[in-house]
Amino acid sequence: MKPIRLGMVGGGQGAFIGEVHRFASRLDGHYDLVAGALSASPEKAKVSAEALNIARAYSSYDEMAQAEAARPDGIEAVAIVTPNHVHAGPAIAFLDAGIHVICDKPLTATLDEAKALEAAVERSKALFFLTHNYTGYPMVRQARELVETGALGKLRLVQVEYVQDWLTDPVERSGDNKQAEWRTDPARSGAGGSVGDIGTHAYNLAGFVSGLNVERLAADLDAFVDGRALDDNAHVLLRYEGGAKGMLWCSQVAPGNENGLKLRVFGDKGGLVWAQEDPNRLWFTPHGEATRLITRRGAAASAVADAVSRIPGGHPEGYLEGFANLYTGAALGIRAHQAGEPLPDLAQLVPGIEAGMAGMRFVAACVDSSRRDAAWVTP
Amino acid sequence: MKPIRLGMVGGGQGAFIGEVHRFASRLDGHYDLVAGALSASPEKAKVSAEALNIARAYSSYDEMAQAEAARPDGIEAVAIVTPNHVHAGPAIAFLDAGIHVICDKPLTATLDEAKALEAAVERSKALFFLTHNYTGYPMVRQARELVETGALGKLRLVQVEYVQDWLTDPVERSGDNKQAEWRTDPARSGAGGSVGDIGTHAYNLAGFVSGLNVERLAADLDAFVDGRALDDNAHVLLRYEGGAKGMLWCSQVAPGNENGLKLRVFGDKGGLVWAQEDPNRLWFTPHGEATRLITRRGAAASAVADAVSRIPGGHPEGYLEGFANLYTGAALGIRAHQAGEPLPDLAQLVPGIEAGMAGMRFVAACVDSSRRDAAWVTP
Amino acid sequence: MKPIRLGMVGGGQGAFIGEVHRFASRLDGHYDLVAGALSASPEKAKVSAEALNIARAYSSYDEMAQAEAARPDGIEAVAIVTPNHVHAGPAIAFLDAGIHVICDKPLTATLDEAKALEAAVERSKALFFLTHNYTGYPMVRQARELVETGALGKLRLVQVEYVQDWLTDPVERSGDNKQAEWRTDPARSGAGGSVGDIGTHAYNLAGFVSGLNVERLAADLDAFVDGRALDDNAHVLLRYEGGAKGMLWCSQVAPGNENGLKLRVFGDKGGLVWAQEDPNRLWFTPHGEATRLITRRGAAASAVADAVSRIPGGHPEGYLEGFANLYTGAALGIRAHQAGEPLPDLAQLVPGIEAGMAGMRFVAACVDSSRRDAAWVTP
Amino acid sequence: MKPIRLGMVGGGQGAFIGEVHRFASRLDGHYDLVAGALSASPEKAKVSAEALNIARAYSSYDEMAQAEAARPDGIEAVAIVTPNHVHAGPAIAFLDAGIHVICDKPLTATLDEAKALEAAVERSKALFFLTHNYTGYPMVRQARELVETGALGKLRLVQVEYVQDWLTDPVERSGDNKQAEWRTDPARSGAGGSVGDIGTHAYNLAGFVSGLNVERLAADLDAFVDGRALDDNAHVLLRYEGGAKGMLWCSQVAPGNENGLKLRVFGDKGGLVWAQEDPNRLWFTPHGEATRLITRRGAAASAVADAVSRIPGGHPEGYLEGFANLYTGAALGIRAHQAGEPLPDLAQLVPGIEAGMAGMRFVAACVDSSRRDAAWVTP
Repeated sequence: MKPIRLGMVGGGQGAFIGEVHRFASRLDGHYDLVAGALSASPEKAKVSAEALNIARAYSSYDEMAQAEAARPDGIEAVAIVTPNHVHAGPAIAFLDAGIHVICDKPLTATLDEAKALEAAVERSKALFFLTHNYTGYPMVRQARELVETGALGKLRLVQVEYVQDWLTDPVERSGDNKQAEWRTDPARSGAGGSVGDIGTHAYNLAGFVSGLNVERLAADLDAFVDGRALDDNAHVLLRYEGGAKGMLWCSQVAPGNENGLKLRVFGDKGGLVWAQEDPNRLWFTPHGEATRLITRRGAAASAVADAVSRIPGGHPEGYLEGFANLYTGAALGIRAHQAGEPLPDLAQLVPGIEAGMAGMRFVAACVDSSRRDAAWVTP
Repeated sequence: MKPIRLGMVGGGQGAFIGEVHRFASRLDGHYDLVAGALSASPEKAKVSAEALNIARAYSSYDEMAQAEAARPDGIEAVAIVTPNHVHAGPAIAFLDAGIHVICDKPLTATLDEAKALEAAVERSKALFFLTHNYTGYPMVRQARELVETGALGKLRLVQVEYVQDWLTDPVERSGDNKQAEWRTDPARSGAGGSVGDIGTHAYNLAGFVSGLNVERLAADLDAFVDGRALDDNAHVLLRYEGGAKGMLWCSQVAPGNENGLKLRVFGDKGGLVWAQEDPNRLWFTPHGEATRLITRRGAAASAVADAVSRIPGGHPEGYLEGFANLYTGAALGIRAHQAGEPLPDLAQLVPGIEAGMAGMRFVAACVDSSRRDAAWVTP
Repeated sequence: MKPIRLGMVGGGQGAFIGEVHRFASRLDGHYDLVAGALSASPEKAKVSAEALNIARAYSSYDEMAQAEAARPDGIEAVAIVTPNHVHAGPAIAFLDAGIHVICDKPLTATLDEAKALEAAVERSKALFFLTHNYTGYPMVRQARELVETGALGKLRLVQVEYVQDWLTDPVERSGDNKQAEWRTDPARSGAGGSVGDIGTHAYNLAGFVSGLNVERLAADLDAFVDGRALDDNAHVLLRYEGGAKGMLWCSQVAPGNENGLKLRVFGDKGGLVWAQEDPNRLWFTPHGEATRLITRRGAAASAVADAVSRIPGGHPEGYLEGFANLYTGAALGIRAHQAGEPLPDLAQLVPGIEAGMAGMRFVAACVDSSRRDAAWVTP
Repeated sequence: MKPIRLGMVGGGQGAFIGEVHRFASRLDGHYDLVAGALSASPEKAKVSAEALNIARAYSSYDEMAQAEAARPDGIEAVAIVTPNHVHAGPAIAFLDAGIHVICDKPLTATLDEAKALEAAVERSKALFFLTHNYTGYPMVRQARELVETGALGKLRLVQVEYVQDWLTDPVERSGDNKQAEWRTDPARSGAGGSVGDIGTHAYNLAGFVSGLNVERLAADLDAFVDGRALDDNAHVLLRYEGGAKGMLWCSQVAPGNENGLKLRVFGDKGGLVWAQEDPNRLWFTPHGEATRLITRRGAAASAVADAVSRIPGGHPEGYLEGFANLYTGAALGIRAHQAGEPLPDLAQLVPGIEAGMAGMRFVAACVDSSRRDAAWVTP
């Protein structure tokens, strides 16, 4: 398969997630990064592009969308890795220009932007992918499969948490932490702090694996750090369609936790546990039997997990590999789309606009519920 | 110290917790079990007493309380290990007879019984101990001390869970599981199922370590097994005095979980994690430093933990040892009380009537909140 | 079953293992400790006995053996918990007096003493038990059963290690560490330091589980602490009958290790792992399948493990419980012996003189091999 | 930095390690793979190159070396990813053509080949890198630094093991396992089976972290599978310069082990543990203090570890990232070399010919020792 010509919006020097997208796009060799609007500052955009050996540098995404769409060798896809409030603008511009979009999460900063983007996806022939990257881990895929094939029986419980500690102190006021600055700023992040940044990942993962939709939720949000405008902790009760219940906890103020995303799902026939910091292992208990340790490419790994694995069991694959699985899924989707073929499974498994809208409704529901003293709200 | 003459109510053949109390009472050699009303059936009471080498067998606790109080060599203390609805009766009888009481949790089956027992404790000169045994683990004691001495700073979060799987199926209808039968029977257990049986432990542990009181809670209770009269799962949001927040999850229907009591506490200066199934280890993270693994009698164990340890680090002490720490604390308290001396620390650390009442209010609040769709309730 | 009247030699104030034996003897209620020669100092012997509520205090084991044998209510069994060089003397005295002996390991300080003791066991009608306590853990029993029933196929590898750090510094010269003093003193410990103290445990455990005998070994012993007379680390290659191979590592100078006894056994059909610091769990991998986590009283626990368990899965049992399993096995053996019945399984599983002699040969072989530059030696 | 033009020898369809090298070369964007002699079969070489979008396909490495050296845009470096017996030939050819070499381990199949290669490295101006990739993990780098800076004091013990199970059965005779075929074939692998394939990694890692050289070793090698020509298990005693001792165990027949490379180092002031299957964590115990959990990019990570990290702590980096760190180190070295500058630290940390020769001597010494009944041998 020929590499896809890729552009990038955002991700200039000092950014975190842009670099992650570049790693992910390079790993399997399915993309060539040839154009970028890496920064709103023309100078920085140029310098960043040079440092990254990116051929064509733009200082605005609008200019880039038009110019690239006009070139015979223009980009086929674009990665959008800006802060949340600059997702909808470029995504719509590129979709409208017929260029496929790979967008970081959450979908947008506001529900209005999200709806506009949803409309753009609907009217565009181009594809839209959203990097809820944790769904890319092989053992997450197998967890989903276990649920789907009934190994857990009828689901009763979904417990998910995403716990960090990097906002324990008011680092957004330290002057040297750009990440903290925009992620705690409602104007750039939207209405959700931790719920938007990591709660949406947890929510998405729970839905991806369980296959269940949340009917109602009750949320208690806090900003434990004085003066912080957005929540840095959220406690959420979940009620799923069909009677399953759950809890979601996300926090950025829990010392000792780096990136503690953990999912536990229980049904009347079994249970499973998966933790992101130990991603190559999946714990599965058929009720009344010994717990099994399922490992990536180990004896009990399934074809679904195998399909997104690169190297043998015991050779850990990590965050970037999981992220790259979405990029590769998107690449396969793009090539199929260009060939007029149906999207292959690996492309269909990449979250898209639907997952993005669900995340936005989740954030809005959490904020709404919390303002009304944790009232039950439909997301 | 001479062994204390001990009696027991309940705990005949086939019982679980009675045997635990006997192990705990024997381990440190502070008790001689010399009298028992082990069963309501006179025949079974006699046979059980003989099998256990218990000198004096009674078929009713009332008879036992009176007879023992009248003997010069009568029991000094009694262990009450009956189902919940037979806690208040014997406890009051022995307290009124001036005999010290060591009672299993939860305090009683109903709030009314609890209040009657509370009154009995107040009017009696005898001591009352409640076996929230998880507070007896050395590393739990050190966790409490870490909070107390400010190592975690101002507390923000208390996450506690107690997860089992033994009621995943309707085993109470199998005909051969007495434990399941009475623990799922409102007449014998009270209004709470999992919240009463294990939720009270989790609630107690969280309060013991954090030193915080819950101001309000919102609970979502479920009986996932068809036809089960009491909850087998509870999701609870907690709001503590002073602004800390928390979550409590207890479940008896989560396959793969045997006795998963786990506590995590986070403040603005640090965090800690302790799990009952790995009880000799305590994880402590001073914010901004590497996580420390504190082990029982290891290099970083404190005097408080040392005081309830028996053997060197690396030689695991378990559930019975933790339980025995309460029995030993009670023994020291009883001897001090008999000598007219103030209760030593180890006795004061044993939960008593106050913890018992708090547990009863917790159960009532959970049930009340859940009936009102998880409304906020003051426990 | 009526409690067995027990005596104790050694174990006065400040001792470690004597206290462990007392805990173990009390836990299941099968013993009454009624006589003791707790110290060679008459004064200390008396004070220690009083503090422990032991009725009859002796200042010499010879006196005790004769006096107790002469009493109608004399002790039925004696626990010997002295330093190694005072094992043979009392063990022989009590065996010759017809009193059952429960002796701490290693068997004796010297091979000559061991042979004399072996002869005494042979000529006595009384029973002899050796507290290689790690064999008492339920999951160790199940590990042995897995091997025995062929679940691992033909054995190929036995890897065992026992690693501590308490002798990293020359604490035996600190003046306040009696344990370190005698355990590093050839006159009291015998020819082996770490190999005698903990290497024998590791060696015994490997043999207990694998059922294999070592044919030859090559050992490299070191005393890393300057001036230490006995080894504090040993590296040993093992060759088993039938072609299996193994490694044994014991160390008391490995910082970060408290009591790290760990056994791994592999055959052509499967493998198992057990670690003493996490004793309620056994990892079993049928080759080509997912690893199973077998837990004490969990879904996959066997009857053999169940027979030495007291409380439900997830309620950790520890070192003292495992130790107590030997005491209870011995008690059942003694009562059967007194009744003229064959020893029950639980008694037969307690290590005896044969295991003791094997341990002594192991120590001698290690020392011999190491002196000859790790030559192959038959133990 | 402009990408380096890279060629590859070996690594056609069905190969394992060639794919790993390609991932590693792509991840950081420092290489463009533009030429390849991917297979000895011209047809397969061509097809593989096309499938991988490699511009120039050759069917012999000699032809490739000459042709590329003659082109102005010829490759600057070559990756050699063939079976062991085809390392020396291409490595010498490219070195003699002035092209930098990145070679898989072990160095060669025979000591004679190794010496010839060593001579080629000495006479060439080009650089030679050997992919002992485990040295590329950030926490391994920090472990080395801890030793180097004295945090462990004077070293006493180095315990290393590398345990797998994939050769438990005679899979090399199944007809569909190319990896197993050549790795168990002396003609292609050399004199060592497990010692060559994974023992060399373990040996290298131990030396990399400890900074110590082995003075003598005694090895007991086995081929547990009937008819296997090379060892599948090795037990090795190590004696280091300066008095430290160690053990090395490598096995490919231990069911339940996927890729269990684990290193433990102990000195008189502390100890450390690192395990490849959990690579983002390093356990460090300063003697007499609590064990610290040092995580990649966590609070206690050092600059040395940070320099080879890509993403924040808690976002697992794995095997490919560690491998890529060697590729990036090599790239920095190559660019510095081209600029006439001294090699930067990251390049100097990549193992080279010296490590390769040490590995070859290790294999030869193991085989020699084992043939002489585990006699002590100087590697």
